[in-house]
Amino acid sequence: MNPAGNSYVEDVEISGHIIDSLILPKILDAITAAGGSFLIKKFTVGQGRQDPSYALVEVQAPSQERLEEILSAISDHGAAPVADSDCRLAAADIEGAFPEGFYSTTNQRTEIRIDDDWIKVADQEMDCGVIVDLETRTARCLPMVDVRVGQQVVVGHAGVRVFPHGRREDRHGFEFMNSSVSTEKPKGVAIRQVAAELFRTRQEGGKTLVVGGPAIVHSGSVDYLSRLIRGGYVQTLFAGNALAAHDIEHALFGTSLGVRLDCGDIVEAGHEHHLRAINRMRRIGGIRQAVEQGVLRSGVMYECIKNDVDYLLAGSIRDDGPLPDVVTDALRAQQIMREKSRDVTFCLMIATTLHSIAVGNLLPAWVKVVCVDINPSTVIKLSDRGSFQTVGIVTDVEPFLRALVVEVEAMQAGSA
Amino acid sequence: MNPAGNSYVEDVEISGHIIDSLILPKILDAITAAGGSFLIKKFTVGQGRQDPSYALVEVQAPSQERLEEILSAISDHGAAPVADSDCRLAAADIEGAFPEGFYSTTNQRTEIRIDDDWIKVADQEMDCGVIVDLETRTARCLPMVDVRVGQQVVVGHAGVRVFPHGRREDRHGFEFMNSSVSTEKPKGVAIRQVAAELFRTRQEGGKTLVVGGPAIVHSGSVDYLSRLIRGGYVQTLFAGNALAAHDIEHALFGTSLGVRLDCGDIVEAGHEHHLRAINRMRRIGGIRQAVEQGVLRSGVMYECIKNDVDYLLAGSIRDDGPLPDVVTDALRAQQIMREKSRDVTFCLMIATTLHSIAVGNLLPAWVKVVCVDINPSTVIKLSDRGSFQTVGIVTDVEPFLRALVVEVEAMQAGSA
Amino acid sequence: MNPAGNSYVEDVEISGHIIDSLILPKILDAITAAGGSFLIKKFTVGQGRQDPSYALVEVQAPSQERLEEILSAISDHGAAPVADSDCRLAAADIEGAFPEGFYSTTNQRTEIRIDDDWIKVADQEMDCGVIVDLETRTARCLPMVDVRVGQQVVVGHAGVRVFPHGRREDRHGFEFMNSSVSTEKPKGVAIRQVAAELFRTRQEGGKTLVVGGPAIVHSGSVDYLSRLIRGGYVQTLFAGNALAAHDIEHALFGTSLGVRLDCGDIVEAGHEHHLRAINRMRRIGGIRQAVEQGVLRSGVMYECIKNDVDYLLAGSIRDDGPLPDVVTDALRAQQIMREKSRDVTFCLMIATTLHSIAVGNLLPAWVKVVCVDINPSTVIKLSDRGSFQTVGIVTDVEPFLRALVVEVEAMQAGSA
Amino acid sequence: MNPAGNSYVEDVEISGHIIDSLILPKILDAITAAGGSFLIKKFTVGQGRQDPSYALVEVQAPSQERLEEILSAISDHGAAPVADSDCRLAAADIEGAFPEGFYSTTNQRTEIRIDDDWIKVADQEMDCGVIVDLETRTARCLPMVDVRVGQQVVVGHAGVRVFPHGRREDRHGFEFMNSSVSTEKPKGVAIRQVAAELFRTRQEGGKTLVVGGPAIVHSGSVDYLSRLIRGGYVQTLFAGNALAAHDIEHALFGTSLGVRLDCGDIVEAGHEHHLRAINRMRRIGGIRQAVEQGVLRSGVMYECIKNDVDYLLAGSIRDDGPLPDVVTDALRAQQIMREKSRDVTFCLMIATTLHSIAVGNLLPAWVKVVCVDINPSTVIKLSDRGSFQTVGIVTDVEPFLRALVVEVEAMQAGSA
Repeated sequence: MNPAGNSYVEDVEISGHIIDSLILPKILDAITAAGGSFLIKKFTVGQGRQDPSYALVEVQAPSQERLEEILSAISDHGAAPVADSDCRLAAADIEGAFPEGFYSTTNQRTEIRIDDDWIKVADQEMDCGVIVDLETRTARCLPMVDVRVGQQVVVGHAGVRVFPHGRREDRHGFEFMNSSVSTEKPKGVAIRQVAAELFRTRQEGGKTLVVGGPAIVHSGSVDYLSRLIRGGYVQTLFAGNALAAHDIEHALFGTSLGVRLDCGDIVEAGHEHHLRAINRMRRIGGIRQAVEQGVLRSGVMYECIKNDVDYLLAGSIRDDGPLPDVVTDALRAQQIMREKSRDVTFCLMIATTLHSIAVGNLLPAWVKVVCVDINPSTVIKLSDRGSFQTVGIVTDVEPFLRALVVEVEAMQAGSA
Repeated sequence: MNPAGNSYVEDVEISGHIIDSLILPKILDAITAAGGSFLIKKFTVGQGRQDPSYALVEVQAPSQERLEEILSAISDHGAAPVADSDCRLAAADIEGAFPEGFYSTTNQRTEIRIDDDWIKVADQEMDCGVIVDLETRTARCLPMVDVRVGQQVVVGHAGVRVFPHGRREDRHGFEFMNSSVSTEKPKGVAIRQVAAELFRTRQEGGKTLVVGGPAIVHSGSVDYLSRLIRGGYVQTLFAGNALAAHDIEHALFGTSLGVRLDCGDIVEAGHEHHLRAINRMRRIGGIRQAVEQGVLRSGVMYECIKNDVDYLLAGSIRDDGPLPDVVTDALRAQQIMREKSRDVTFCLMIATTLHSIAVGNLLPAWVKVVCVDINPSTVIKLSDRGSFQTVGIVTDVEPFLRALVVEVEAMQAGSA
Repeated sequence: MNPAGNSYVEDVEISGHIIDSLILPKILDAITAAGGSFLIKKFTVGQGRQDPSYALVEVQAPSQERLEEILSAISDHGAAPVADSDCRLAAADIEGAFPEGFYSTTNQRTEIRIDDDWIKVADQEMDCGVIVDLETRTARCLPMVDVRVGQQVVVGHAGVRVFPHGRREDRHGFEFMNSSVSTEKPKGVAIRQVAAELFRTRQEGGKTLVVGGPAIVHSGSVDYLSRLIRGGYVQTLFAGNALAAHDIEHALFGTSLGVRLDCGDIVEAGHEHHLRAINRMRRIGGIRQAVEQGVLRSGVMYECIKNDVDYLLAGSIRDDGPLPDVVTDALRAQQIMREKSRDVTFCLMIATTLHSIAVGNLLPAWVKVVCVDINPSTVIKLSDRGSFQTVGIVTDVEPFLRALVVEVEAMQAGSA
Repeated sequence: MNPAGNSYVEDVEISGHIIDSLILPKILDAITAAGGSFLIKKFTVGQGRQDPSYALVEVQAPSQERLEEILSAISDHGAAPVADSDCRLAAADIEGAFPEGFYSTTNQRTEIRIDDDWIKVADQEMDCGVIVDLETRTARCLPMVDVRVGQQVVVGHAGVRVFPHGRREDRHGFEFMNSSVSTEKPKGVAIRQVAAELFRTRQEGGKTLVVGGPAIVHSGSVDYLSRLIRGGYVQTLFAGNALAAHDIEHALFGTSLGVRLDCGDIVEAGHEHHLRAINRMRRIGGIRQAVEQGVLRSGVMYECIKNDVDYLLAGSIRDDGPLPDVVTDALRAQQIMREKSRDVTFCLMIATTLHSIAVGNLLPAWVKVVCVDINPSTVIKLSDRGSFQTVGIVTDVEPFLRALVVEVEAMQAGSA
């Protein structure tokens, strides 16, 4: 029995960049914060920066229940019990709900053990369960709402291991921006890095997802985003009714919520333009039809149709209209977002809290995400919710996109 | 022909507190901004503050089309053509869309003229059309999405008049807060006024709608809102999945997103509590069932069930779960919000941008609205969108609700 | 006696764009808010937009004291008693303080009456007193701290008239931005207008004052501001120790508070660079000496020396060092700011709350001011304090200056 | 020679809570970021949470110069060369400036070695130099401006060691608030902890310093702060001219910048009250005189005089007046702040960016600081500048102070 009287013990091992990445301190912290104690039985520090370290830690707790709580908590940081066992499974007994005690996923790479084999979990997404197909010996993340009776669901933390996403060398440049949401950072550097990421993604045949809010239109940035789309830098666009409706209002009337975007004048009764634009789309039947009939001849949505950008307009309770293309059911919209974001390699979020957090919840930890917003609270909210891979840039949409297009087009000219 | 060569003219008259309320300057501005000019033919100023003023203004424009644009713009401010005519009607030719040229509503009291009679428009709401039942000689606002083929829709601005909501004497105290969104205002005064409004609404049998975000739970304010509900100060609650899920997590586990609300400590793996709380509700079938079965025994949602508060949980794409009670289709949720907010007399919005703007879009101009948020941008956005009756208080949720409950309960004790 | 029993009366007249500019409503409001009432005896509305209107209003109050309070309040809006009298003077009896009851100035054009003649007040500045030289029959604003015993100071509101600065046609484009501090405005338009203002000021031989904060350096914008200085677009620079110290650190070490501005990397121990840069200047004796000795060879301060930009570095309690050039006494710094800003025609404030408000307090109402800050609260604070002529642009410094330089240089190329 | 070709090496040792407190990862990071490499020669992990760990690390660099840079950088984190030597001293050759290469201090406990003895540095403050009195064998921090020719100044990092302030157990409760500046935290907990700190400080005879901005008055919180002062919870107050002037305006006229704080109404011409209040103080000669003569009979400044609170009013360039008590020279004000804050044990900063950062720069790392502001950027700025011990609470002043007083007075009643 150890000094603290914590007589329930289990050995766990942790390996990787556990010092470098602050993982070990977090694990030790978690143990003591939860009322446990620990003994570091073995510790090997990687001598160079690239070398992995290894720690063997005895976790001590005052009760079996507490011990399991601690093991569960630290397993999210990659601490795996030495005496490993297979994962436990329970059959779903209710449609759309997990069995009690289900294993709740993170957005980190995860494996489960079946018959002594470690199997990679597919469709990694946070806040899901893991269902297992015992025949094919495959496992994947599944949202609560999609559970069907009889599916085999992982229960508890035994037989589950997580590989926390360490600092990647190639992200080094990005890191600096992430240290805080301070606005006092050199912005030109950040813009150049985003441009380089867009350019590399296109060169390497990756997939860039832009998640955008209506400020792209209000701020007068339609032309900049249009140029990125025409240049092949955007494969997928997620937005709401507002971005599309403002964009179409701008294309049809030259205004956005009644403000003329060329000179900034307010057009009296111009706020009606917004509604008339939506009404016209509803009369025609949709954005694609409006483009095909020559009614819609410019703008972000026009470019999406013309350049085969895969888009989703997700509905919300504050929508006017909405446009016929909008998916008004939140669950259906989430499902489509999930499908369309599976193979995304770079995600640029611009001026939308709602859609950014929705997408941030779906992406695995290894997808690079840059979130641009003039309001620091959006960026803070994203990190608070576990989207740790998100680089936040607190800046203004129009000048940001204006400069971004210049940088991207310069790279393109340079590489031609 | 007038000096500016604007040979298309029409006389309009404006009456009411047109100086006091800045309406006349706005109208004259709108005329010249749109390229027209004006001649003030008659002007009678109310001598005292309560006396109405009257102006007869000739509007001049360079073309008939421009003239109509101007008349349309100024009609929203209450300028009605002297040579009045009936409103024009057109039958809807497409499901879910208005005829082109439909009259787009404001949130101000509106009347339309049919056979020389002025008829009040029911269900006043901004950004709708007006449909007329010629048999019953009634008219009401209808959202675009609800239009059915064959309905008679008001087209153009002729035969429509609007009564802008002037400064009401009884709102005088409120006004000061509205002058800007500055945080540098005496907060005790604002809190007392909100308390008085809640108290008066209950005394007079009015209906208070609370629109709330999850920060009510995060910030540790569940108890304060619960006391207001038990005291009979809340008749309706609009929220999202997040508020209810955090509230239930707090009731079941004592945490909110894994943070213990009694001491602020972070419970490792506590973020799972969030998902487990939702899963449990899905297993039981709903919040009411959880209360009836004794699973849920405290919190905001518990009090709603126990005190017959009419609630709506509207879904969004960032929801986890969601709870079985959540209405996931945005159009269906809007429809329910519309119904439940028809007879609301006071609306208190707390820490939610999405739901606040959604509700602000639905309420007529004469409903008092107070919007509380620590982020000034939420309040700015509400006013930018025409919810002029909104009083914004930039403050922090927990201390605000803590002080509000003290004030309300003191009034209650004082009146007993 | 009038209905409200307000038997103390005085007639005032108001003329100008009193409807257009909302002056009349404000005056009527002020009267009733202060417990008075009014009778509009005569009212002539200018028929066109450019024509002045005229109102003769009887102000009614319950006591002589209240009447004078009201007359004092509305005189700031340009309401002048009909039965005009000379201004009253009292000799200053204490160094550095006004006699009780002194007339407190606004930043609007002001005249005082002496021997039936109206005399223009020089050095217009808000929150000062007016001192009169009876021999030369001249008057000027004087700050409290500069009062000397025996000076003749205007007391009360009699014999003082104010000419509120109406909407100027040539500012029309600017107005739109001013309607609120919303970030949802087309930014390209705003940037073009600021560029045009800088360009016109240079063309017309005006004087542009830039008031800048250290974020100009942090954000990586030294080169942009340097180009504006070299182009002759900046005549005067007001800043604090921080801007200059960061700029010099950047010139000497390539960092700003230890962050490398070319790649964003944090240089360990680089925060020392800040202090070493200041120390080196102190050793050399000043910025000019450092330029002359070839130690300082680039940056904002270097360009100021090389291009004869008149600069002031005003100290504050958070300064490190400070640099030898810094004026550490706040009163002395105010005095210098006053002198250097007397003939400024355009003022561009960038990312500094403290210096922006300090300068805003000194400028008369007719100087165009543009205030750029990513934090809306800075802009709100400026307007709250009566700097009504300020156009606020909520945006990010680096992309703003980057785009501004492009626009200005394009205008220059176009005009060559 | 090691693999990276880094042939310049030196051994350093680090001990203490180096894992727990993230110090080791930071040091290893600093080495590689600066182009060096490392070999961990020995590593002993403390087995329990309270046990210190120890590491012996060989630092490798490509040049002697780079090696010294690295040693300098990591010495701030407590890494001390094994082959220790005495510190190097150089005589100051210029008034008000250090010799080039001076050791620049942190706000952590520091010792220097003289004749093989480690001597504690007094007056610990960041961004200073260390001067040594060889006769008394004492050392202390000295700001650049106070350097006198001939003083012995520590140069380089040899013979200097720093003891980074680890996580203190007794601060555990505070930690949670510090993890980010998110507004989504339970506020009641934070308020209770601040109350407990105020209470304990008074019980233990400590010294609480309040640094306050004018929002304390605007927001209607004068009474709350007055009660804390009367209760003996405030020993020292740092503020600017604005807080005192608003407070005195409120005491004399009931307004703050012309806003009545009891009902929120705006008093027309009430902005003059501000100036008249200051003028009256200037006529009387000072705040103490005004209290003694019965002119000033309530408010924060009144309570300071009556309860012997030691106050400093530091001037700034945006001050009106200023009050006679204001210290207008920034250097003199810093000097006084330094003296008055030497023995402070708890510091509560309320709604002032300028004064908070100024004070944060002066305090050693072991003084507890709580910074309350509704604007997250103030809190972010404080941490960005190295005031790591600062706990930021993003909340609204009035409800915060209202709740704080209730908590403190409840503790007082409970202990009586």
